[in-house]
Amino acid sequence: MSVKTTATIASFGGKLLKLTHNSSTVGCEMAFNLYLPPQATTNKSHKVPLLIWLSGLTCTGDNCSEKGFFQHGASEKGIAVLYPDTSPRGLKIQGEDESYDFGSGAGFYIDATADPWSRNYKMYSYITQELPKVVFGEFSQIDSSKVSISGHSMGGHGALSLYLKNPGMYKSCSAFAPTANPLKCPWGEKAFKGYFGESDWQTKGAEYDSTELIKKWKGKDLDLLIDVGTGDNFYKQGQLLPENFAAAAKVAGLESGLTIRMQPDYDHSYFTMASFADDHIQHAAKHLLA
Amino acid sequence: MSVKTTATIASFGGKLLKLTHNSSTVGCEMAFNLYLPPQATTNKSHKVPLLIWLSGLTCTGDNCSEKGFFQHGASEKGIAVLYPDTSPRGLKIQGEDESYDFGSGAGFYIDATADPWSRNYKMYSYITQELPKVVFGEFSQIDSSKVSISGHSMGGHGALSLYLKNPGMYKSCSAFAPTANPLKCPWGEKAFKGYFGESDWQTKGAEYDSTELIKKWKGKDLDLLIDVGTGDNFYKQGQLLPENFAAAAKVAGLESGLTIRMQPDYDHSYFTMASFADDHIQHAAKHLLA
Repeated sequence: MSVKTTATIASFGGKLLKLTHNSSTVGCEMAFNLYLPPQATTNKSHKVPLLIWLSGLTCTGDNCSEKGFFQHGASEKGIAVLYPDTSPRGLKIQGEDESYDFGSGAGFYIDATADPWSRNYKMYSYITQELPKVVFGEFSQIDSSKVSISGHSMGGHGALSLYLKNPGMYKSCSAFAPTANPLKCPWGEKAFKGYFGESDWQTKGAEYDSTELIKKWKGKDLDLLIDVGTGDNFYKQGQLLPENFAAAAKVAGLESGLTIRMQPDYDHSYFTMASFADDHIQHAAKHLLA
Repeated sequence: MSVKTTATIASFGGKLLKLTHNSSTVGCEMAFNLYLPPQATTNKSHKVPLLIWLSGLTCTGDNCSEKGFFQHGASEKGIAVLYPDTSPRGLKIQGEDESYDFGSGAGFYIDATADPWSRNYKMYSYITQELPKVVFGEFSQIDSSKVSISGHSMGGHGALSLYLKNPGMYKSCSAFAPTANPLKCPWGEKAFKGYFGESDWQTKGAEYDSTELIKKWKGKDLDLLIDVGTGDNFYKQGQLLPENFAAAAKVAGLESGLTIRMQPDYDHSYFTMASFADDHIQHAAKHLLA
């Protein structure tokens, strides 16, 4: 459980920490970044809430901490931001590094059940259990009772999925360009077939598919914010399918808890996240600081 | 002079354009980025001022447009931002790509006089003459009479140097971690010896050295903003020397026109620029929108 600090970087009045630890859940050393806002670095007895940010395919915890502009709003509101990696790394599993959309950099925030992935590709348990425990154990200035979640693309799927599977675990959830119905898109089909096996992928996948999960939501006060750019090529290619998610929410009578903003001309890149990061921080702050 | 658009990216309500043109000054195709704030994209008859951003060693126009977050403040204030490259590229000059601090990515915003660099390494003329002409010719919504300049490290040297050499050309100037006295630091000595020759480097270099130039400043209303991080390793290694610049300003009776902020713990990275970008936009806006 011991955490090593590899860098401490001043950012918007607070500190961005680059950290590593040995994860028993995924069986390798994992890197992650943690932004502590000035409210948590100047007065260590002041507790701050936490926003977990899940990144998309090919990313690590670095991309969003460099290009997402979340520290700007997090510093103002006094919110810590946790940027985990997107998969285990360096396991020498055959095929691990062959695709941009499967294996390393593409953990999909599920617990794999098919060989050879089932031992290590357990990013669902890692993000919901082990990593928060490590972070709360190491950083007493973070309030473990106030956690929200957000993410982008594959990480948007992760944020929605983890939130909908665990009512009460997160105070709020938002997403950029989420893969909102992975059972019905090429990325999700490939990942679920690989991680769950050819025979089980649809039933196991349904346990993590936000469009399926929202139909069974039993939590309270749904208030999801989703931004999708109309210039996003992956949206145009049908990898995101926010319409399916919206339709499922409507059938479930939950449309009042869902705000999907179609942002004109915005693409799938971090330029989009930077442009609306303040809004997503504000969305989280509304619930975390209530 | 024709400009090609290679990408148009939505950013903070405006557009980040990735552009190329064939430069006669430096004799090759040059890439640059231009941010047009929403005020210039929604109403093309509305003129907006321009901030030129000069990047540091190893950078292109991309780094700051992705990680510097100048678009955040530029969008709010209605200022276009021009991100040029830092040198000519691909000229096949012997030694061009051998060093991170000389040749490609390290043009130092001077006009070289020594062979084999004197034909192409004319970034001073490129930035002060050709590139603005190209930009104003192509984008009529930019007000050519309202231009400010800023930059980082080698680009901070460039910003100060171009401003001090050309009273009245720029409405304001600011810098992050500028190489403020290149004649007295290893980066500057290497660059000036290479670009001006072993026998001339000190006299030619003095024509571009901000600490020399401020002693002879004849302009009006000096109001320079400089941020330097106390955790900046290049500052600690004596590559920046803001103290020399401050001392020269004092001798010239100009200390009231110079604000140097030593930012505790901040390093040489874009995390520092992102953290204070809004302040530098505000500094430019004060002069550009006056």
